[in-house]
Amino acid sequence: MLDHQQATGPRTPSTAPRGETVPTVPPAPKAADVVDVTALLERGRTLATPVLRAAIGRLAAPMDTVSAYHFGWIDAQGRPAAGDGGKAVRPALAVLSAEVTGADPEVGIPGAVAVELVHNFSLLHDDLMDGDEQRRHRDTVWKVHGPAQAILVGDALFALANEILLELGTVEAGRATRRLTTATRALIDGQAQDISYEHRDRVSVEECLEMEGNKTGALLACASSIGAVLGGADDRTADTLEKYGYHLGLAFQAVDDLLGIWGDPEATGKQTWSDLRQRKKSLPVVAALAASGPAADQLGDLLAADAKSSDFENFSEEEFAVRAALIEEAGGREWTAEEARRQHTIAVDALNAIDMPDRVRAQFTALADFVVVRKR
Amino acid sequence: MLDHQQATGPRTPSTAPRGETVPTVPPAPKAADVVDVTALLERGRTLATPVLRAAIGRLAAPMDTVSAYHFGWIDAQGRPAAGDGGKAVRPALAVLSAEVTGADPEVGIPGAVAVELVHNFSLLHDDLMDGDEQRRHRDTVWKVHGPAQAILVGDALFALANEILLELGTVEAGRATRRLTTATRALIDGQAQDISYEHRDRVSVEECLEMEGNKTGALLACASSIGAVLGGADDRTADTLEKYGYHLGLAFQAVDDLLGIWGDPEATGKQTWSDLRQRKKSLPVVAALAASGPAADQLGDLLAADAKSSDFENFSEEEFAVRAALIEEAGGREWTAEEARRQHTIAVDALNAIDMPDRVRAQFTALADFVVVRKR
Repeated sequence: MLDHQQATGPRTPSTAPRGETVPTVPPAPKAADVVDVTALLERGRTLATPVLRAAIGRLAAPMDTVSAYHFGWIDAQGRPAAGDGGKAVRPALAVLSAEVTGADPEVGIPGAVAVELVHNFSLLHDDLMDGDEQRRHRDTVWKVHGPAQAILVGDALFALANEILLELGTVEAGRATRRLTTATRALIDGQAQDISYEHRDRVSVEECLEMEGNKTGALLACASSIGAVLGGADDRTADTLEKYGYHLGLAFQAVDDLLGIWGDPEATGKQTWSDLRQRKKSLPVVAALAASGPAADQLGDLLAADAKSSDFENFSEEEFAVRAALIEEAGGREWTAEEARRQHTIAVDALNAIDMPDRVRAQFTALADFVVVRKR
Repeated sequence: MLDHQQATGPRTPSTAPRGETVPTVPPAPKAADVVDVTALLERGRTLATPVLRAAIGRLAAPMDTVSAYHFGWIDAQGRPAAGDGGKAVRPALAVLSAEVTGADPEVGIPGAVAVELVHNFSLLHDDLMDGDEQRRHRDTVWKVHGPAQAILVGDALFALANEILLELGTVEAGRATRRLTTATRALIDGQAQDISYEHRDRVSVEECLEMEGNKTGALLACASSIGAVLGGADDRTADTLEKYGYHLGLAFQAVDDLLGIWGDPEATGKQTWSDLRQRKKSLPVVAALAASGPAADQLGDLLAADAKSSDFENFSEEEFAVRAALIEEAGGREWTAEEARRQHTIAVDALNAIDMPDRVRAQFTALADFVVVRKR
């Protein structure tokens, strides 16, 4: 879907997602090429998950069980499940960022867990606010356990995030919590914008980018710096890592928006044309509408009519395919792919402002590459 | 309703709520008697409100407006309103607690604001979870602005509470945030218990007290110590002030539970027999059910039948009056009044463990007296 070969270096086996077959022997390695991204993601998951589980274990019943369902550790009947924990980019970034300061990756663990807790707090509340019934192929918490539990457990995860950091009792933990709070406020601002945009006919590309920066950029920024902050990094180092993470987040979201329309349902776990079915004003859509020409005009007319259509629920595959083709013809797909590459470049270049071990820099770069080439 | 003359000293003009006529000249003063509680509450309100308003002003639209509606600063149409800001016991305690350390009351302001933000976060979410349509004589936020805004703005107030403290950037602020986080976790635990108890036939007195300690005690504990923590108090001082506040909270809630059944609707702003209409398992009810004798048995049978009754919504005043009389006959009213006095005594006695200026001690005592004699 995205062709990043030029922007991010050749797609090597090292950056292939788990389970994908690897057709060729890697070429002579550049720094980023020799990084095993799968192992890096696995390290973050392995370090963070036991601490996350222990944190969830502190919650009073039934909030512990509801949380365990949300994280995919048990099914709706309470039976153990081998849940799909997601890509785990955030924990990988958090423990990696500790190494920027020369600290062990373990120093970043409370940060990784806190960021995951805030991320999942926002998922619980957003799914309820948006009325989304499915997440990661499963019924959402409010659907299974009711709206009250979704609100309550979301609140509990948010509070737990602060607890996990502040109980460290260090000055660094206070600074980390402050940055996490700033990210959380941005997350909430982004959701407020998302909700308000739903009620509007038109959203500008700038507004969409601002919303995505809040909803996705801010927490990835925090994930990319929180381990370093816990490791004693100064503000300049932390701010630089935040800049990397923020732009990585924008790249991540641009790719998400592409997958939301043209992604392979097998890989994404979403329906075909998922974002179009939800009338989401995602980047490809707003970029296409902002273009001039007959395709943009026709798309605008169609979407305006769709907004009033009582038959929208019954639209066929073909009707969505027509809209997707118009978005592509108006340039929305290519603009978004280019935007992903642009943000990826800003993210990776930002790291040049600070010193860190070459290995750590290569790993940050490899994670950025992974984010833009992923298929799910 | 409550007769505290013996336990808490004579009810003097100094402790009379605002607007109440004062019939007699005060007797020769004891320390607590000379405290002007109205002025003390007003001081907390005056110090905290401008900072609270400025904090709310940071929120992105429409969260600022929704918050302003919740706080009673504007009406549902956005017109300025002179809202009833509540009793403002928490801000009064927070600024007073700063003076324990010899600091100015102003040092407690960020703590007062943070506690108010957390309190109102919980009101926004609880009203939605509980389906409560009215608060302080006005439609609740979810009723006026919809469930999504109630969730979102609650989240924003919670995040803002941490922001207000952590942006102080001091070690003390980190400690204060940690204590606030602990209180917030307790608040959430209490709401989880409250929800689960609704689905049960019987709740023990101990369970009810635990729930009320979480829902009311924990945040009053935090309010009573947070100014001192910001003023540099050691853990022993902070823990002692928390103990005072926790038991004050239990006294406060016992009085609330009495007012919820026998309060004057004019004063409380609630319906007659308010808690009975909501089938609340409040202290007088669980204490009455835990008693032995014919009144307790008859009450148990009636409430069990009520739980299954399809006609409950149409119950007359007389039917609720019968239940209230049985609660009283079984001893639930007197037990709860005694419990309020008992918790009041524990709270005030706790203060003996630490040094503080006599004036400050007298003011803490006077606030405790106010909490148990209030009519609303």
